[in-house]
Amino acid sequence: MTTTPSAPDKAQFAGEVSERGEWKRQANHFTGRISRDSTSAPGEGPDNQGRWPVEVGRYRLVVCLACPWAHRSLIVRGLLGLQDAISLAVVDPVREEPGWRFWLDEGHRDPVLGIEHLSEAYLATDPTFEGRVTVPCIVDTLTGHVVTNDYPQITLDLSTEWVEHHRPGAPDLWPEDLRAEMQPLIDEIYADVNNGVYRCGFATEQEAYEEAYDRLFARLDVLEERLGSSRFLMGDEPREVDVRLFTTLVRFDAAYHGHFKTNRSKLTEMPNLWRYARELYALPGWGSTVDFDHIKRHYYVTHPAINPTGVVPKGPDLSVWPAVAPALGD
Amino acid sequence: MTTTPSAPDKAQFAGEVSERGEWKRQANHFTGRISRDSTSAPGEGPDNQGRWPVEVGRYRLVVCLACPWAHRSLIVRGLLGLQDAISLAVVDPVREEPGWRFWLDEGHRDPVLGIEHLSEAYLATDPTFEGRVTVPCIVDTLTGHVVTNDYPQITLDLSTEWVEHHRPGAPDLWPEDLRAEMQPLIDEIYADVNNGVYRCGFATEQEAYEEAYDRLFARLDVLEERLGSSRFLMGDEPREVDVRLFTTLVRFDAAYHGHFKTNRSKLTEMPNLWRYARELYALPGWGSTVDFDHIKRHYYVTHPAINPTGVVPKGPDLSVWPAVAPALGD
Repeated sequence: MTTTPSAPDKAQFAGEVSERGEWKRQANHFTGRISRDSTSAPGEGPDNQGRWPVEVGRYRLVVCLACPWAHRSLIVRGLLGLQDAISLAVVDPVREEPGWRFWLDEGHRDPVLGIEHLSEAYLATDPTFEGRVTVPCIVDTLTGHVVTNDYPQITLDLSTEWVEHHRPGAPDLWPEDLRAEMQPLIDEIYADVNNGVYRCGFATEQEAYEEAYDRLFARLDVLEERLGSSRFLMGDEPREVDVRLFTTLVRFDAAYHGHFKTNRSKLTEMPNLWRYARELYALPGWGSTVDFDHIKRHYYVTHPAINPTGVVPKGPDLSVWPAVAPALGD
Repeated sequence: MTTTPSAPDKAQFAGEVSERGEWKRQANHFTGRISRDSTSAPGEGPDNQGRWPVEVGRYRLVVCLACPWAHRSLIVRGLLGLQDAISLAVVDPVREEPGWRFWLDEGHRDPVLGIEHLSEAYLATDPTFEGRVTVPCIVDTLTGHVVTNDYPQITLDLSTEWVEHHRPGAPDLWPEDLRAEMQPLIDEIYADVNNGVYRCGFATEQEAYEEAYDRLFARLDVLEERLGSSRFLMGDEPREVDVRLFTTLVRFDAAYHGHFKTNRSKLTEMPNLWRYARELYALPGWGSTVDFDHIKRHYYVTHPAINPTGVVPKGPDLSVWPAVAPALGD
């Protein structure tokens, strides 16, 4: 018998895998919130409850177009019309040490933050930070410090704390009367689908992978049934939970199906989920935020532990997606 | 910029990749033929033209059920009713150094050849052999020497040289009047499809992969069209060329689509090819030779250079294949 390496040795991120080969995502490190209840004045830091002031033009949202967690904030910012209130920085989809890089910008530097790597902002904020540098995050342009990389809170706060700056007619993505029903759905989708695909792909042992795979498709089957009698997850209007499911579904066939081995079926083979994803994709502010090139290059080039050659598949056939509606601003 | 390893360093088989990352399959080393024209007597070795005598019970066909090249010979042997004439050895689907192992047998040894690794027969035949040990091969049980590992010739010789021992009503897989049309088709399918999927999967550079991918799907599109007006490739009866296409198609969704990145479409998304593959699968002597477990474990466990974790996908859904007809003997 040959010896097989232990789970952490085979892992893409050695600090985030259990001894039985399960992927355990790190906690989000920066959990500041920008809040209309902040008692800080414009230009000041957080108040004594950790709340930063809402302030147009002050904050910079940093995303990778490949990243499903960042993609959420990009969609929500656009749907709510916050493009002029919160500026946007886009990192290169290929991540190498020391993490996300501003290599799409002239001189390989973000023109506002003046940094080449996002890790510079992380370390400026907390010199002891040793985890994985993640997107999305919101950076305070006055100090260069990271306010938050707490992605599930970021989108909720865009909906609730920035109301004053929403565009006229902006949708209510997080209506109070739907939250009690929406939150459990969000939690299930996070555990089994959003994070579930990573638990499939980053598992280093067969059993851990199969457990994640079974949970993923069991959950997709439940959602498939729900969408048989409902246009979107919560009825006739897209809500926060739809943003969260969409960003995983749109990556499913292009990346997860092969790269993360989530291959019971393609998205295109689950009729209601496919109808639903296509319908969202065709709406203004949704499909225009999807960059399949960034998605494919990120996953297939950035994970040498699961794709050492770095060759990016040419497929699948992406012409099956509908035409993209115009973006809602940029 | 990080440095990327040169093509051979990223290769599954370093000796079989070009500097531009193309997969170059090694030549078959043993090219003896068992022929009814041999002038050798029973029990003797090859005659002065390298032809071994046809002799019931003397030769042993060694296959891996995962291997498409070996699968051809298994199908043909069964369709022609040569099970009692030529015995069968099946190696473990997981290949590790020093190559294919008889680990499915009691004591981890082939009961007839008495060896643990197929490499023992290779080296007994040619002590200087340094290439990759491959299946299928035919071994002479009298000497333990390899007669041939020349897979394209093996099936043709089963059809033409062993006629005297075919079962009554055995099909003519290689009829003389069809050869002129069938040979170019065989050559195209070999280059673009049978070997083409390996050229996709073992490419270590993007450009070499994309070239192989384009050729693969261009050829499949041609075959898709041909099968729109023809039950099998040469008309209403399966022939040698169908055996050769089938063994690649039956592995397509289970292995190549994800593992080798041949993911423009699944087999199930190419209607005529899918109809054709299912129809062959349902015929006696075809589906009964397919072992999806061996196929999946072989590809996903045996190629650490492209799947370092060795995790085997649970999908795709294989229940889409029709019921298996009884085997034609064993």
